Amino acid sequence: MTQSLIDRLGARLGPAGLLTEEADMAPFAIDWRRLFPGRPACVVRPASTAEVADVVRLCAEAGAALVPQGGNTGLAGGAVPDGSATQVVLSLARMNAIRRVDPVGLTLTAEAGCVLKLAQDAAEAAGRLLPVSFAAEGSALVGGVIATNAGGINVVRYGMTRGLVLGLEVVLADGSIVDGLRALRKDNAGYDWKQLFIGTEGTLGIVTAAVLRLVPKPRHTATALLAVPDPAAALRLFTLAQEEIGDSIQAFELISGTSLALVETHAGLRSPVGTAGWTVLIEAASSLSGLREAMEGVLGTALEREDALDGVLAESGRQAADLWALREHVTECEARAGKSVKHDVSVPITAIPAFLDEAGRVLEAGAPGTRVNAFGHMGDGNIHYNVLIGPEHASEAINGLVHGVVDRYGGSISAEHGIGQYRVAELARHRHPDEMALARRIKAALDPQGLMNPGKVLARA
Amino acid sequence: MTQSLIDRLGARLGPAGLLTEEADMAPFAIDWRRLFPGRPACVVRPASTAEVADVVRLCAEAGAALVPQGGNTGLAGGAVPDGSATQVVLSLARMNAIRRVDPVGLTLTAEAGCVLKLAQDAAEAAGRLLPVSFAAEGSALVGGVIATNAGGINVVRYGMTRGLVLGLEVVLADGSIVDGLRALRKDNAGYDWKQLFIGTEGTLGIVTAAVLRLVPKPRHTATALLAVPDPAAALRLFTLAQEEIGDSIQAFELISGTSLALVETHAGLRSPVGTAGWTVLIEAASSLSGLREAMEGVLGTALEREDALDGVLAESGRQAADLWALREHVTECEARAGKSVKHDVSVPITAIPAFLDEAGRVLEAGAPGTRVNAFGHMGDGNIHYNVLIGPEHASEAINGLVHGVVDRYGGSISAEHGIGQYRVAELARHRHPDEMALARRIKAALDPQGLMNPGKVLARA
Repeated sequence: MTQSLIDRLGARLGPAGLLTEEADMAPFAIDWRRLFPGRPACVVRPASTAEVADVVRLCAEAGAALVPQGGNTGLAGGAVPDGSATQVVLSLARMNAIRRVDPVGLTLTAEAGCVLKLAQDAAEAAGRLLPVSFAAEGSALVGGVIATNAGGINVVRYGMTRGLVLGLEVVLADGSIVDGLRALRKDNAGYDWKQLFIGTEGTLGIVTAAVLRLVPKPRHTATALLAVPDPAAALRLFTLAQEEIGDSIQAFELISGTSLALVETHAGLRSPVGTAGWTVLIEAASSLSGLREAMEGVLGTALEREDALDGVLAESGRQAADLWALREHVTECEARAGKSVKHDVSVPITAIPAFLDEAGRVLEAGAPGTRVNAFGHMGDGNIHYNVLIGPEHASEAINGLVHGVVDRYGGSISAEHGIGQYRVAELARHRHPDEMALARRIKAALDPQGLMNPGKVLARA
Repeated sequence: MTQSLIDRLGARLGPAGLLTEEADMAPFAIDWRRLFPGRPACVVRPASTAEVADVVRLCAEAGAALVPQGGNTGLAGGAVPDGSATQVVLSLARMNAIRRVDPVGLTLTAEAGCVLKLAQDAAEAAGRLLPVSFAAEGSALVGGVIATNAGGINVVRYGMTRGLVLGLEVVLADGSIVDGLRALRKDNAGYDWKQLFIGTEGTLGIVTAAVLRLVPKPRHTATALLAVPDPAAALRLFTLAQEEIGDSIQAFELISGTSLALVETHAGLRSPVGTAGWTVLIEAASSLSGLREAMEGVLGTALEREDALDGVLAESGRQAADLWALREHVTECEARAGKSVKHDVSVPITAIPAFLDEAGRVLEAGAPGTRVNAFGHMGDGNIHYNVLIGPEHASEAINGLVHGVVDRYGGSISAEHGIGQYRVAELARHRHPDEMALARRIKAALDPQGLMNPGKVLARA
């Protein structure tokens, strides 16, 4: 049956739209971290929404499962097939047009295969900002950004991707196209069905195009790095910054001493405020004058109150980039330091100091010899709580310890990376059965055959 | 059957929780504009989520329809029963606790029956801002604000209510409670099911409590009123303001000469910049010191470019309130002027001048003798396009003319007021059948018996 399906797909898409050779399929078969290897039946590369719809219909008729794939930059294995050689990988990469940029109406319309960075560049060329930004933006595709409700460094100001999606075009599990590509900031006419396709990782349908919201590009930026005595002081600093600078704060990052030590050892970068304790990176941007003065005020007050031990304010874009480099090198340097167990958790912002304290104690008791590399988006309550381990440590046990503390603080076991295949079993353990039952009911209603990215987010029925 | 259900509801809720006398039920039976009269079987007033759940279960067992009601301030008849005397109105008003305000984590947890104004006041007392604000905020309840995805005057900056809901507790159609009251800014762990209950007007389940996002309270506000030659100039002014002041702009309102003439005639208020043509009200707020200077710059540049004919910048809070009064009195003065046909439409912001022009011409040709009272949230693309009519005019024909133009500009026939019972038939005409089919599929999955606010948003199956 698979071969006959492949023949029909080839007939519909032509040679440019179908890959069947192992070597050609290899990049689509495994995630970039090479943690989740799979074997597709074939890879299809439709060039239009109509082709996507036909692929979905042909697969539905054949009972074949589909795995939509964007830039394949995810961290949870959500975009790669299982090992059965029966799943069809549907790459959106050829649908890469930017259909429209409207700088007056503050919208950008792009197809799912458009590289995020190119969409950002198009907004920038029109004097506007597409505010979703994260490390993989040079490879991630707009469709994947939406399907995973991507987060990143500007969430404290602009929210997650969900809040930037004004309109959506999707292909449903039966191959029908639903066109909701409206460029409206406000629309309360009927169910906002597009919400179902944002952040559900292709398990309910396939995003083929979107209208994204742009924002005015702030003229001035102020970037500061502060050494703080502890996370409780970082939290007081967050409140101070909110009061003095307000929602012009667009990044509020917490970095542990361990993180900076890794960056110093493996990248040779040294923090200008020292690497002994905790460090906070604050970035604010506005078109109003008074931004730099307000940031100076925050630094001065924090030093006076001893909530900061030292602080620098970048004097140039170059210097700001140097401060950001400290934060941006953490993940890569962690990888060079050896094996680690990663956690992408969130808790209520107010609970961050207590969470860090308790998680540290729990690991000390339950997994002696581990080292915690904690850093992340404190202004969103999102901590990348990674644990450096030796050969004597078991990943799952460490997951259990950390996520147990997350539960006690009413947190989330996946703040921004999603569930994919990586956290499916854990999600079922950590979310209440009523929530899981509701998710299954939605899944059954939209994908009754269970062919849309099966086994991702939810376990197979 | 109805009497036996009423007996069971009374046994569960006690006398304070059940109203059956016509006089007691009267305020719940009709909307405040008295356009949608109904007759309930009874009115229940549960005092807890557990009581709501039991009411829903008892009604489901009896096959009785439920109509959830908040402050009953809606404009589309979404919260009132039909005339059959078989529907149970479920008022959330007794569940009115504010459970928590967290000024550091920037969240507020409230029950569905909490008056919006009291939630705003609680945020304010903690030095924070709950940014959803609209005329009925003194009566509207938090649950209704969420169920209708309320808009209001600050959407240009803070978005619709949807973007402010971090966590939700709901009762499903089978009476089960789903508790998602997480106070997390970021949470990508599984399906974000709460989106289904925001803006669906109680047709999929009942919102019983929510965690709302707060924002820092800006220290300074600048409010300006400008006379502009036409809507195209207003649009250029919007772009200028976005470039100079950025997302510190929290209101950008367009008011027609007709609107201001009504306000002058019926409320005796006179615009300081004249009432001849179009007027724009801009409000911006920030904690940064350069706000007023930037607003002065916008006024100066707009006058220089002749995109503004005259302009004033409020010198005090009192003066700002006087400028707002002009805008706020429009609806009331329209009512005093006679009969009108209201439209709450949105189009892409860029299309507003062309939309206004074309809609005006269409009405002149198709409904001579009418007068257009257009005003609204231009920064969101949302125009309240109300048509003053005489006895010779038919509402439905005028709806058809206006909404036809909305369709041609890719707009929405309900930007913020929702569908309720008022726009059900029109929604079905103006949205694509594929979108309506998807909505019905969601409805069938979550409310298979069709007992949750039947006939609202979607026609009865």
